[in-house]
Amino acid sequence: MFRSIFISLTLITSMAFSVSAKAEEAPRNLIMVIGDGMGFPYLSAYRYFKDGRGMTDQADMEHTIFDRYLVGAASTYPADGTLVTDSAASGTALATGYKTYNGAIGVDADEQPLKNMMEYANERGFLTGTIATTRVTHATPASFFAHVPQRRMEAEIADQYATRNEDGSWKFDLMLGSGRQFFVREGDEENEAVDHLEYFRNHGMRVVSSYEDLQTQQRLPLIGLFHDRDFPYVIDDEKRLKMMVEESLRLLENADQPYVIMIEAAMIDWCGHGNDIGCAMHEMAELDQLLEFLIPYVEEQGDTALVVTADHSTGGLTLGADGEYQFRASEINKIGRSLRLMATELKDMPGIDWDDYIEAHLPFPLSTEQQSELKRVASYEGDNHREAINDVLRDIVGYHTRAGWTTSGHTGEDVPVIAAGPWAEHFRGTQDQTDIARQFIEWIKVQD
Amino acid sequence: MFRSIFISLTLITSMAFSVSAKAEEAPRNLIMVIGDGMGFPYLSAYRYFKDGRGMTDQADMEHTIFDRYLVGAASTYPADGTLVTDSAASGTALATGYKTYNGAIGVDADEQPLKNMMEYANERGFLTGTIATTRVTHATPASFFAHVPQRRMEAEIADQYATRNEDGSWKFDLMLGSGRQFFVREGDEENEAVDHLEYFRNHGMRVVSSYEDLQTQQRLPLIGLFHDRDFPYVIDDEKRLKMMVEESLRLLENADQPYVIMIEAAMIDWCGHGNDIGCAMHEMAELDQLLEFLIPYVEEQGDTALVVTADHSTGGLTLGADGEYQFRASEINKIGRSLRLMATELKDMPGIDWDDYIEAHLPFPLSTEQQSELKRVASYEGDNHREAINDVLRDIVGYHTRAGWTTSGHTGEDVPVIAAGPWAEHFRGTQDQTDIARQFIEWIKVQD
Ligand SMILES: [Zn+2]
Ligand SMILES: [Zn+2]
Repeated sequence: MFRSIFISLTLITSMAFSVSAKAEEAPRNLIMVIGDGMGFPYLSAYRYFKDGRGMTDQADMEHTIFDRYLVGAASTYPADGTLVTDSAASGTALATGYKTYNGAIGVDADEQPLKNMMEYANERGFLTGTIATTRVTHATPASFFAHVPQRRMEAEIADQYATRNEDGSWKFDLMLGSGRQFFVREGDEENEAVDHLEYFRNHGMRVVSSYEDLQTQQRLPLIGLFHDRDFPYVIDDEKRLKMMVEESLRLLENADQPYVIMIEAAMIDWCGHGNDIGCAMHEMAELDQLLEFLIPYVEEQGDTALVVTADHSTGGLTLGADGEYQFRASEINKIGRSLRLMATELKDMPGIDWDDYIEAHLPFPLSTEQQSELKRVASYEGDNHREAINDVLRDIVGYHTRAGWTTSGHTGEDVPVIAAGPWAEHFRGTQDQTDIARQFIEWIKVQD
Repeated sequence: MFRSIFISLTLITSMAFSVSAKAEEAPRNLIMVIGDGMGFPYLSAYRYFKDGRGMTDQADMEHTIFDRYLVGAASTYPADGTLVTDSAASGTALATGYKTYNGAIGVDADEQPLKNMMEYANERGFLTGTIATTRVTHATPASFFAHVPQRRMEAEIADQYATRNEDGSWKFDLMLGSGRQFFVREGDEENEAVDHLEYFRNHGMRVVSSYEDLQTQQRLPLIGLFHDRDFPYVIDDEKRLKMMVEESLRLLENADQPYVIMIEAAMIDWCGHGNDIGCAMHEMAELDQLLEFLIPYVEEQGDTALVVTADHSTGGLTLGADGEYQFRASEINKIGRSLRLMATELKDMPGIDWDDYIEAHLPFPLSTEQQSELKRVASYEGDNHREAINDVLRDIVGYHTRAGWTTSGHTGEDVPVIAAGPWAEHFRGTQDQTDIARQFIEWIKVQD
């Protein structure tokens, strides 16, 4: 009897240990998803936009996947005293675990390189990569793969991507996004012409420029640049992020090595800078679509840690404005174009009928004053015609939706942290964004 | 051997159950704390205000107690389709678990009473109470103890407080706040004079009107009303919430019965309505001081569940505004008065020297334009003189701090949820605010 109790206690202890070890199992792969500019207000606004009803009833609002996997919040202040970060300092913090000044890409306050998680991962035999809905040389992806003192140095960033490590390995195994213009550059009096894509091709890297091409690829390393400059907004075109990630996971699975990748839903931020709620909600829908696929995927895999966060909030979005206790989420569903595209088309399309165009893409009951403002900018002849049109459209959207904005820039509130897979528990509560990076880097460093 | 394995498995099962029961131990007491208007931006801003430095260095920002106990977020939309709640609908949701229309105090969309957690608690032998830095008849406390179709019916709310239940018991055992004016009312042609305080005194309830009096009390029931109308702002006076709560806990401990109380840090919201960041940060400091005492207290007690949340965010506060990537938290520390008090004193104090006054309480390097705006409102002779002064002061503060605001009202973003003590785990992730109330009510209902 004593013996059997002894055995049973041992059994209990080992069972308890195995349960706890199971919960804490170290992941094989890491996926960090950054919703650029996706502060908390974007999650709330998106829930109501997705619900789409004018009236909301008794507690029957469905939670989004952002809601269901929210685990905490992260502070984002940079090291330069402003308390409001840009995407470069914040991307560097998320890639390296160190804070730096606004504008810095992978360097510290003294402009010295900070080793990032992709470099640690590469050294330890992981595949590394990024998938972004922006130029791969833009601040967020650049922070994970390059080191330059100023984010605007995008040609230099492309040059670094096309420079192999000392051991002959590439700086990345997978890179999908846009910004071909920085990889293929014509020469001028000061600079030689470069064709990094040619260099990639000649040294064993696949180079693709269309989604169709991407879908036929069978192996890494691979770079896919789908636009010379930027992606169109989702509201003006179609979703593409989930497809790019699905193709990436297919290629990573084929390669059968552990991987570390960073996925950026980049244009939430751009819509925020434009104070364009319709635009922002469609970019959020793209990220929602991705997570509805990706979270079940990592949960089924069981060995892939997923963290979703933002680098900052953009535009100072609030639900409600100007003293009105209203956020008309259902009205946002009626908007058919980004402000930028509407302003561009209204300015540039010959013979365009303004009334028809506005009726089609911004179908709100316009006040007399709003109508006369539109007439004013239709015949406006000064500089910045597009901006003048944009401002009138923005004010109409603001009035009819009551989305509030405080700035064309970023704001410094804490951002959401969402997590799934092993380690989701590590990111509970409030942390600094550098703590997210440090946990991953510490984990990468002990792999072999 | 088979038998001993059987025993050991039973043992494992029962141990597992007891571990799980321990972690899930039902609380004896419940404390709900509502930071009125305390959206996420207030937590971020307060961290930087408390830190107080102009420059922030490498990741050495201390986490506040709000950060350390953050567990999730709550949605707050009312049942009327606006998506932006007021304090009445939100207070009713937090008190009853049901959504209602803006303005409703403890009633549903058909103006029918919704049973609140204090009523359930009272029926089951708990002591109930509230401590608020506002009129106890104001929307938030009223939602926990009264039922009226419109929040402005504060005399009616006081009448309900002074009406005993059918069994002769009081509607509350402890009520601390302000708003004596609604309890002692002079008669007029339509209404009889009432003195509810006299009635309370004559029927065994202690009535106090000063903090000194409160500190000498030894037993419940007790009502303490410390101002006829409202409390002064902390920035203009001194902190008082922690002291009121300490005295309350002393009296509750003396009474030696389980209790359910709601504590409201009410004036964060008021500062937000005034777009007054200095005022808001000092109210946050008062709540911080309370939680620095209260959270260790409940953790030591072990049997008191504590949830801290907000009913909504106010003012559309953001950190940064107007295109500037700056939030000058250290500048906020220099502000010495609420905007409202400054505007009142500048308007009303005879022979006041404006330059000296501004220099003393708003010591920013004023631009020429800011100085001339001050001169303009100093000699302003129209209506709303105080408001005109207030607006100029508000713009000066906005310029020097880069606190951004989108509204004089509320906004609809999700609010923070902070928890300590048993059950803290229940409130992780994103939930609707009604789920917080429902969990507590379900627990109260099964007590005896
Ligand atoms: Zn960004
Ligand atoms: Zn409120």
